[in-house]
Amino acid sequence: MDGEALWLESLKATRRQQGASALHERLAESVRRSIEAGLLASGDALPGARRLAEQVGVHRHTIAAMYRLLAEQELIELIPRSVPRVSIERSTVERLRASRPRDARYRLRAQRDSLVRLGHFDSDAEGKTLVSLSDGIPDPREIPSAQIARAIRRAMRSRSAADLLSYRDPRGETSLRQQIAALLRERRSVPADPSRICMTQGSQQAIYLAAQTVLSPGDVVAVERLGYQPAFEALRCAGVRLKPYPIDERGLQVERLEQDAEKIRAVYLTPHHHFPTTVSLSQKRRAHLLSLARKHRWLILEDDYDHELHYEGPPILPLASGDGGAHVLYIGSFSKVLAPGLRVGYLCGAKNVIDRVATRRRVVDRQGNPIIEAALAEWLEEGGLRRHLTRAKRLGLERRDATSLALRECLPWLRFRIPSGGMTIWAEAGKRAPELQEAAARAGYRLRTSAEFSIDGRERGGVRFGFARHRPSEIARALRRISIEIR
Amino acid sequence: MDGEALWLESLKATRRQQGASALHERLAESVRRSIEAGLLASGDALPGARRLAEQVGVHRHTIAAMYRLLAEQELIELIPRSVPRVSIERSTVERLRASRPRDARYRLRAQRDSLVRLGHFDSDAEGKTLVSLSDGIPDPREIPSAQIARAIRRAMRSRSAADLLSYRDPRGETSLRQQIAALLRERRSVPADPSRICMTQGSQQAIYLAAQTVLSPGDVVAVERLGYQPAFEALRCAGVRLKPYPIDERGLQVERLEQDAEKIRAVYLTPHHHFPTTVSLSQKRRAHLLSLARKHRWLILEDDYDHELHYEGPPILPLASGDGGAHVLYIGSFSKVLAPGLRVGYLCGAKNVIDRVATRRRVVDRQGNPIIEAALAEWLEEGGLRRHLTRAKRLGLERRDATSLALRECLPWLRFRIPSGGMTIWAEAGKRAPELQEAAARAGYRLRTSAEFSIDGRERGGVRFGFARHRPSEIARALRRISIEIR
Repeated sequence: MDGEALWLESLKATRRQQGASALHERLAESVRRSIEAGLLASGDALPGARRLAEQVGVHRHTIAAMYRLLAEQELIELIPRSVPRVSIERSTVERLRASRPRDARYRLRAQRDSLVRLGHFDSDAEGKTLVSLSDGIPDPREIPSAQIARAIRRAMRSRSAADLLSYRDPRGETSLRQQIAALLRERRSVPADPSRICMTQGSQQAIYLAAQTVLSPGDVVAVERLGYQPAFEALRCAGVRLKPYPIDERGLQVERLEQDAEKIRAVYLTPHHHFPTTVSLSQKRRAHLLSLARKHRWLILEDDYDHELHYEGPPILPLASGDGGAHVLYIGSFSKVLAPGLRVGYLCGAKNVIDRVATRRRVVDRQGNPIIEAALAEWLEEGGLRRHLTRAKRLGLERRDATSLALRECLPWLRFRIPSGGMTIWAEAGKRAPELQEAAARAGYRLRTSAEFSIDGRERGGVRFGFARHRPSEIARALRRISIEIR
Repeated sequence: MDGEALWLESLKATRRQQGASALHERLAESVRRSIEAGLLASGDALPGARRLAEQVGVHRHTIAAMYRLLAEQELIELIPRSVPRVSIERSTVERLRASRPRDARYRLRAQRDSLVRLGHFDSDAEGKTLVSLSDGIPDPREIPSAQIARAIRRAMRSRSAADLLSYRDPRGETSLRQQIAALLRERRSVPADPSRICMTQGSQQAIYLAAQTVLSPGDVVAVERLGYQPAFEALRCAGVRLKPYPIDERGLQVERLEQDAEKIRAVYLTPHHHFPTTVSLSQKRRAHLLSLARKHRWLILEDDYDHELHYEGPPILPLASGDGGAHVLYIGSFSKVLAPGLRVGYLCGAKNVIDRVATRRRVVDRQGNPIIEAALAEWLEEGGLRRHLTRAKRLGLERRDATSLALRECLPWLRFRIPSGGMTIWAEAGKRAPELQEAAARAGYRLRTSAEFSIDGRERGGVRFGFARHRPSEIARALRRISIEIR
């Protein structure tokens, strides 16, 4: 109400003032300023022309002309038989701001806002805006959104559009499960078929549902000492106890699990590109882990979140490929390889386990989104993934190498090995890690260190550099600024 | 592998046979039969022309011609620089089947398949296919899928398409929360703002997340004795104990809760159109419930799943409208009013509760689908809901009245009152309920009775008739058939 009064007050004040331009233009300018100042928000209703004319004390034709002008500027929407409504895209406001050269501060803020929207910024504890340099996610500018839009259009155009808007199989669209089963069989040697797959909202829900389905309160779950905190949290929701084990350059030290063999109920791990250190679990340890799982009836939750993004030779076959679904519940996702916002992940395992997962999913959120699932199936079927991977891998390789070079040049004292896959470089900064993190913050960047990935908070010294999200020039600039701050 | 061998065998056999038509046509016919018989499924790879020509023993131009013909018939897809793939819409197979008048059995099955796809069928315990007559869901044929497709297209076309495919606020798109807040304020008098709303995957996830966030194991939750089983299950996932209370023609008997006031921690109810009996909670009981909640610090989970679908006068204001978020966690959904497959529901409550819900959602499945959310916001903003409701309410009213008439005509001994809203009629069949259910099954229909909605399985006698999902003529036909069976 306060806001409403203020914009109206401001409008009335404008009427009383003299000005060079026509009255309706000056009134429109006043409303625009109110919108920019946040006094009016998108969706807010404005009075009808007649009523507002009375309130402001002008002819209603003036208000009508003002409304038309605002509608032309895409600031309000005129709806037949209804009152006008504020209707702005943030980009519209930014454009208007940017078009006023006399106010550089506005432009700067608009630019920054646009970067925040792109997810390039993060905030520190004091609310200072920082560019995140540690995320292992795709560059939003490189997501093939036009292809995805086309696939959605096609899926919706098909005769089954009404079906796609109804209640469906909680395991997900059959067409998508068929495509993923084929993908798993052909590219990862996982003996999959549609009845052994349940779609999930990204890998996050896959981990959550798996834990809810196959684990019980009190179960001990072995995990890598460093990992993805939301995954740990999803596991903890099932009431289990997480027991961390060390990792080295060959991945999880499987032999260390043997001593606790009888206590352990399940193992959750990221064996392909370990999160966050990027190391791959060695073949010997893979075989050892599978044999331990068979012997002690462990469940293995294999999180293979970015399988295809492997730059040195073909990807390593998952644990699930050597298992047949008896002990491994396999987690895949399209968040890294395509787009996080699609919210498409999946679980692949024994049919009876998948049926139980589906039963649980029915209670948790009923089912996924059939439109998105059908569209992704279309995209996979017409070879979209193959085409996209060619480009994504080229980009990833280019950015990995550029980032490695920039790291060597700007922070030569960091120790790191070039990862064979994934979207990040893991560097050892030793005791200087906090100093590096602080220098980055001063330079305007957010770096994450081991402490944030550690299950017990005791790990130190590691620093994560994400190379996929930014252009090489952007990363080089960031590292140069950080190197100046740390001197 | 067996399937593959069989279709190839069949192809070879065809080559050896004489025929009136050209060889490539006969070979194509053989592949088509294999697809129809399920020996080849959509997505299956076929050998390249050269290789298959060798296997079958014909010239590769013949195979190439066969593949072109199959592609024209939309049975396979020819992909440049790749092998051909079986690529069929079920509708294509049906069309081909239907175009063969000599085989009526095929046509019948195709018709039935298409109805199963539309969700008009259900199966009984023995796997016999039954048309579901009890669901309170929209008719898939009446879902405005073209409008939804257009809204998605617009959302994807905007500059923010790449953003929509990234990680986003777990509470959901701001634009959608703004629209819903406005809707709740303007149409339901709920004092909502975007910070008090968290989007969910339908109301199912809303109930699940609410329970996970505000309830603790051992809590006693009062529920209506008859209700939606998946809601009960979602509550039980939080480890709570459900305590059922009776309902009458004025809704939940609130006074009965008072005696257990100290034990009760929360109340879950559907006060607008009670599920499944359709009664509305009286104003007096609403006031009583709110005062009890204030006095005993109960949480009220108000599930208002189909608010707008009210035919007699304006909808009744939710409990949340008289509360301000202190005690009521309000659950809304677009599943009934628009389309179940969108998977869009929401929770509205106190800001601190909503923040906790969002924290939980981050762990459960990270966030909803930003594309769908942005599209729904577009649709709401351009007045889609208002337009759609005009039509949906007209249809609902028409079908409610037609179904009431048909029930009176065909099953005059049933007692029921015409509901003031919703998508179903609740009838009392007394001891004849099982008999009615069995007669319906013999006629090919599935009817649900109290037993299936009862928390303790002790309720009997009620039967649910869904009127929104089918056309009046379809319902009349169904009821006539059932009435013949029950005589």
